[in-house]
Amino acid sequence: MVRPGGRSARVQHAVHTAVRELEAEVGRDALTVPLVAARAGVTPSTIYRRWRDLQQLLSDVAVERLRPDAAPEDRGDLASDLEAWAEQFLDEMASPPGRAYIRDALLGDPDGSNAGQCSAYAAEQVGVVLARAAERGEKAPDVESVIDHVIAPMMYRILFRPGRLDASYARRLVADLLA
Amino acid sequence: MVRPGGRSARVQHAVHTAVRELEAEVGRDALTVPLVAARAGVTPSTIYRRWRDLQQLLSDVAVERLRPDAAPEDRGDLASDLEAWAEQFLDEMASPPGRAYIRDALLGDPDGSNAGQCSAYAAEQVGVVLARAAERGEKAPDVESVIDHVIAPMMYRILFRPGRLDASYARRLVADLLA
Repeated sequence: MVRPGGRSARVQHAVHTAVRELEAEVGRDALTVPLVAARAGVTPSTIYRRWRDLQQLLSDVAVERLRPDAAPEDRGDLASDLEAWAEQFLDEMASPPGRAYIRDALLGDPDGSNAGQCSAYAAEQVGVVLARAAERGEKAPDVESVIDHVIAPMMYRILFRPGRLDASYARRLVADLLA
Repeated sequence: MVRPGGRSARVQHAVHTAVRELEAEVGRDALTVPLVAARAGVTPSTIYRRWRDLQQLLSDVAVERLRPDAAPEDRGDLASDLEAWAEQFLDEMASPPGRAYIRDALLGDPDGSNAGQCSAYAAEQVGVVLARAAERGEKAPDVESVIDHVIAPMMYRILFRPGRLDASYARRLVADLLA
């Protein structure tokens, strides 16, 4: 665990910021550990000690970027809430930056914890939508069913099936699940 | 395209064989391009010219290993055929070597063609099962529905959700789709 405000948290913040800045300035393929270290004001060995290699650092940065920054919109009923969430999720994840972050998150992740974190973020958002439906007295599927039949097909096609994915695909998955 | 029997096909065969042998002997993490080249009897620059780096070579080898080596079993009806296929697919893909091949296939695959090939193999196998059902006069879903609701959930959980996946999970996905 990283104690907020401690030295470890400050190093993490400086290094993540350096990666994001340098990605924007020189592009992802030109990133190196010494370059990131110089920008962050730490030694390369600090980075190697903590992240082992560039790929693991990029995976941590990608997971941070995939963290949702707001609760899903409340549109008043389950079908609308879940549709809106699925459309936005697909839009973000299937975009070129979204695809790059998913790739980075998976690649530098030897123990699977970063991939698990990405999935936990999505499950939390869906949990909020389903809890609202329960409060309204609506019949709702469980989170695991939404993972299997809405999230999984979108992510599978992003990773494994070339071709366009549009909002109507997300809406159809939600409609089929709720039918 | 690689002409079978040509020089290019011979190089590919020698290099793939060298990767498989060395993986078994020294382990995947000890593989390097010079080591593979020496074993295959080619120069390292031959490998760099053709695969660019070790990751792309490992991706190609992984896709070869994920190629199905037999048609799905014919058990006489759609539900049994699809259940048996899904159980075997999950068993292979969720095993430690299966997970390593999926990872390798995705990682050294800048244009997504190897990931697409993995998915095409699975879709072909499912297509055989569904064509048999059609010949028997059984009502059957289309390949895209099997991808969305059987293949995608299994692959998503292998990549993103830690935890045990057993045959009953595969059977439940098939039963839900056919219900």
